[in-house]
Amino acid sequence: MTLKLGVIGAGAIGKEHIRRCTHTLQGATVVAVSDINADSVRAAIELSGINAESYSDAYEVIKASDVDAVLVTSWDPTHEEYVLAAIAAGKPVFCEKPLAVTAEGCRRIVDAEIKAGKRLVQVGFMRPYDEGYQALKLVIDSGEIGVPLMLHCAHRNPEVGENYTTDMAITSTLIHELDALRWLLNDDYRSVQIRFPRATSATHARLKDPQIVLLETQSGILIDVEIFVNCRYGYDIQCEVVGEKGIASLPEPSSVRLRSAAKLSTSVLMDWKDRFIKAYDTELQHFINDVKAGKLSGPSAWDGFAASVAADACLKAQETGETVNITLPERPAFYQQ
Amino acid sequence: MTLKLGVIGAGAIGKEHIRRCTHTLQGATVVAVSDINADSVRAAIELSGINAESYSDAYEVIKASDVDAVLVTSWDPTHEEYVLAAIAAGKPVFCEKPLAVTAEGCRRIVDAEIKAGKRLVQVGFMRPYDEGYQALKLVIDSGEIGVPLMLHCAHRNPEVGENYTTDMAITSTLIHELDALRWLLNDDYRSVQIRFPRATSATHARLKDPQIVLLETQSGILIDVEIFVNCRYGYDIQCEVVGEKGIASLPEPSSVRLRSAAKLSTSVLMDWKDRFIKAYDTELQHFINDVKAGKLSGPSAWDGFAASVAADACLKAQETGETVNITLPERPAFYQQ
Amino acid sequence: MTLKLGVIGAGAIGKEHIRRCTHTLQGATVVAVSDINADSVRAAIELSGINAESYSDAYEVIKASDVDAVLVTSWDPTHEEYVLAAIAAGKPVFCEKPLAVTAEGCRRIVDAEIKAGKRLVQVGFMRPYDEGYQALKLVIDSGEIGVPLMLHCAHRNPEVGENYTTDMAITSTLIHELDALRWLLNDDYRSVQIRFPRATSATHARLKDPQIVLLETQSGILIDVEIFVNCRYGYDIQCEVVGEKGIASLPEPSSVRLRSAAKLSTSVLMDWKDRFIKAYDTELQHFINDVKAGKLSGPSAWDGFAASVAADACLKAQETGETVNITLPERPAFYQQ
Amino acid sequence: MTLKLGVIGAGAIGKEHIRRCTHTLQGATVVAVSDINADSVRAAIELSGINAESYSDAYEVIKASDVDAVLVTSWDPTHEEYVLAAIAAGKPVFCEKPLAVTAEGCRRIVDAEIKAGKRLVQVGFMRPYDEGYQALKLVIDSGEIGVPLMLHCAHRNPEVGENYTTDMAITSTLIHELDALRWLLNDDYRSVQIRFPRATSATHARLKDPQIVLLETQSGILIDVEIFVNCRYGYDIQCEVVGEKGIASLPEPSSVRLRSAAKLSTSVLMDWKDRFIKAYDTELQHFINDVKAGKLSGPSAWDGFAASVAADACLKAQETGETVNITLPERPAFYQQ
Repeated sequence: MTLKLGVIGAGAIGKEHIRRCTHTLQGATVVAVSDINADSVRAAIELSGINAESYSDAYEVIKASDVDAVLVTSWDPTHEEYVLAAIAAGKPVFCEKPLAVTAEGCRRIVDAEIKAGKRLVQVGFMRPYDEGYQALKLVIDSGEIGVPLMLHCAHRNPEVGENYTTDMAITSTLIHELDALRWLLNDDYRSVQIRFPRATSATHARLKDPQIVLLETQSGILIDVEIFVNCRYGYDIQCEVVGEKGIASLPEPSSVRLRSAAKLSTSVLMDWKDRFIKAYDTELQHFINDVKAGKLSGPSAWDGFAASVAADACLKAQETGETVNITLPERPAFYQQ
Repeated sequence: MTLKLGVIGAGAIGKEHIRRCTHTLQGATVVAVSDINADSVRAAIELSGINAESYSDAYEVIKASDVDAVLVTSWDPTHEEYVLAAIAAGKPVFCEKPLAVTAEGCRRIVDAEIKAGKRLVQVGFMRPYDEGYQALKLVIDSGEIGVPLMLHCAHRNPEVGENYTTDMAITSTLIHELDALRWLLNDDYRSVQIRFPRATSATHARLKDPQIVLLETQSGILIDVEIFVNCRYGYDIQCEVVGEKGIASLPEPSSVRLRSAAKLSTSVLMDWKDRFIKAYDTELQHFINDVKAGKLSGPSAWDGFAASVAADACLKAQETGETVNITLPERPAFYQQ
Repeated sequence: MTLKLGVIGAGAIGKEHIRRCTHTLQGATVVAVSDINADSVRAAIELSGINAESYSDAYEVIKASDVDAVLVTSWDPTHEEYVLAAIAAGKPVFCEKPLAVTAEGCRRIVDAEIKAGKRLVQVGFMRPYDEGYQALKLVIDSGEIGVPLMLHCAHRNPEVGENYTTDMAITSTLIHELDALRWLLNDDYRSVQIRFPRATSATHARLKDPQIVLLETQSGILIDVEIFVNCRYGYDIQCEVVGEKGIASLPEPSSVRLRSAAKLSTSVLMDWKDRFIKAYDTELQHFINDVKAGKLSGPSAWDGFAASVAADACLKAQETGETVNITLPERPAFYQQ
Repeated sequence: MTLKLGVIGAGAIGKEHIRRCTHTLQGATVVAVSDINADSVRAAIELSGINAESYSDAYEVIKASDVDAVLVTSWDPTHEEYVLAAIAAGKPVFCEKPLAVTAEGCRRIVDAEIKAGKRLVQVGFMRPYDEGYQALKLVIDSGEIGVPLMLHCAHRNPEVGENYTTDMAITSTLIHELDALRWLLNDDYRSVQIRFPRATSATHARLKDPQIVLLETQSGILIDVEIFVNCRYGYDIQCEVVGEKGIASLPEPSSVRLRSAAKLSTSVLMDWKDRFIKAYDTELQHFINDVKAGKLSGPSAWDGFAASVAADACLKAQETGETVNITLPERPAFYQQ
């Protein structure tokens, strides 16, 4: 049985997911595509060589009788309404991050899903599907390093464009750690503080770069995350978990070891797409499999809401320079694992 | 369009390939399975939950009108006849290594394929599909380390069973290097010599373990391969290419880095299945894609023949202690790349 | 010409320095030793097999006509008076850290030395003499990683005794970083904040362990130092300098690489003495050479004062939980390099 | 008590050892220097600022009443006669490698020393004093990797001059491994075979580069040593010991770890002097201490003889392409440890 997917939003990410479903993943086929731009729909369909219906109205995709499940890859501010519509239609929906552009919007989706009485939403947080993070979680959960006490993390990009501003260090960059670290530690955040070191000369007036984010969790784990989006040397994701009796660090990406020109070296990736490409495949394959099995298990609407609440606090911490509390309502029984 | 596969041989590897085609790969479905043991066929079909026809006669699978291509995963001595039958039927065939149990058998397949006028055979050598080997080949081909002069390789298993004898270090173990290194270097072998160091106390009377194999290529590259199948500590595949101006080594498998108990460590795999599991997926996906595209490009019957010729020389080198020439006929134009 | 040394304080460190001067270093000999405990003097002299005069009064050592220079290795609270006496006697003095137990005490030494018109004091900060830190400083100063923006450091001990309390994380442990990082960066501190993560279960009521110290320098470099003195797994000193275009990290101590029991590992030291043993030799050899050359160049009284001012601020930051300013008077011209 | 040394040969190595004894080591002073070139003597004395007698006749140095021990750093062909003269004079002698230019010459020294009834000779093999080799030997001797079965070694130089010829790969380069590996394994050699891979284009007509040396020990350990003296990328000494249950490798020299320009790297040394500089200090300090203690324990005349016998066999193996036996007489009781 092949799962029939409708895709809302045929921009870069939409095209990429259509290609992925068509040529890489198993068990699904894209049967409907919509975009406000008809040319984009056409291009996406041609690019992947699929035989899909094109729509100008996203709601038509959701309603289409041959669409079993929906992928939302449209403009961020439209995510909320399409996810709510999919829930209303009783159709499983995979929504690219952010689930909604406000915490309130995420909360409305959570409420709608609970009311629907069944998990219908998976948010596009892919790091929990990365083999490195999974291996790291296995080590933590094994007790080998004891109870985690501190995390030292870094999220470094070689460079960003002129449009990238200080707040985007949270909403576009840290958002991945905000989700992944909750999952890794099985814990929620209690507070956040942000410090700004001396700025790199490679940045511009509207971007303070780098930043140091200090998150504290409910259980008291202290996390420092260095965000440095003009670090020049590579795309480098680090996560070191300091436990009571040992330290476990995220694997370095596999690389040929080279002895050359007075150096013993391995490669650091330059393009973020190379780092998590398999995780993107895995997250969507999981969604497909879970929908077919009738039970979603990936990052939930609640996870999207929690990340959004934390991100809001981070933005306030950026502005005020103070330690800002992160207050998440109690996790509904519906989302207990 | 889904490729319909017939599988000959429903033992461990057959079952694994059926599962792979059904649940991991894209674009193929297993429609026919045969084995001399009817229970095995039944078990394989049930295990993967497929809807396939079961046969007792392998030739029926090859002839079945709904079978587009054949996978040969039967007992080694039967490979040759089934591959020849598939060629005769004009059907693409993926044959697990060895292609045939003798070099002469491999040669007969080569001759049959040339006569058929079209590449129909892919041999199950998976290392060229391993990401690590591919990355290593990219570095070599880039010229970054200059012309290769020497290779230092190791093939280590934690242990082998009592049935594993000295000759199997060639036919079951080194055979992978014999294929992979030809591909890596774009070169053929000229001679081989084998030296036996002091044996490990973990071995038995009929197995000299470890062994050092010294291969020389046509271009003069000198390759040493340590084969050590009771090394205890792990399954460890090493390949270091020494070039005129630098050295490139196969990536270590990605692993969590651990600081614990006075050690800074990463993991070494213990199970060979974990090392090349993705390469097995990739080689078969490639076969499926290539068959659908009408043009095979993976390890060819000629590659199977070349590995077999080299393996025969290695066996003779084991017995005689002498340097044995490896004489491969000129590569037919049919197999030029 | 051999430098004749008088040693004040024949406890563990005193004995060790006497042994070092006698059996490891070049160009000096210990001719006088004092301690409030006459047995300790006797033991120290016997242990190193030297032919030295024993004194009960430290001032006699300083005054002794055959003593060219003085080593102060007595009880911390006595350092200040002996160093001041050595300055008054015009004799070069190597004083183990701390230079004095208060910043005011350090300042009195600075003032006395300036008044003496000549550098006479070297403080026993040995990390600048460590080959690893020196190599790291070379890389920073070369400009290879660009201007430093952040430092991520760790100071981890496997365990500490019951007498070790929260404040000692500053005065006995961080004190080394407080000196070494000023030297490494050629910068002074502006402020400090201390955060307490969840405590390890291996600690006791009077020791909050671990701690995260956040130092900001005058040029805006943000430094985080993890202090974790019951980390169990080893004695581990880390220092990662994040610059505008690259990152340089302190070398790991050299170690045999081991493949064993499913691990690829190197050793982590368990004993702090093994980590900096050569640096102790080098600092004292430098003092000897500098005294003979008539010009001290090692860690100065000013450096001792600066570390003390920073340590005081850290203690206040521990108590208040606030960001505490670190205000150092302008560096006197006397100490300009 | 200071040991008074006489140095025979004031060329580069002589000057270096005089500087070492004068400014780095402890407990010795150079009181006499000879060279066939009087200017060299003068230069050496001035360079180190010592107050030594200069001689034109080496025998005068050996006979000088104020000379306690002799360092022979003269032209290789003169080593034997000066060492024999020192033995005859009953004076301890440290002789730079080679002990003599023929195995017979070494044997004459062995015989003379045995006749003298006391160890008087230390040969300048410094690798056993290298901390890395010592750490490796500790691991082997601990039994952690089990009984050694194979060694994979490499001796790589970035480049050599035009005067360096094929035989010097043995006499100037491999000679270090020939000594160090006997010591490391507590074993002697049984045979040697040499294979010549494709030559690097960076070599010249009289130098086959690289070479692979295959040594077998009396206990059956098989050693491969890659000698590659124009490897371009660095001075790199590798030694990997494969035991029955694990593998131990020589430590990489300590180095700053760098993340820069898409690489994660450490440094490879370019200059051999940087690699073993501390080992040179240690070997000579050991000689000084041992002479003062009345009992030599470093590389002996027998070790010099054994290395010479092995080197002769290697030269024959280079010429013949055959496996050549290495036949060492039984070790005299005099040299039992």
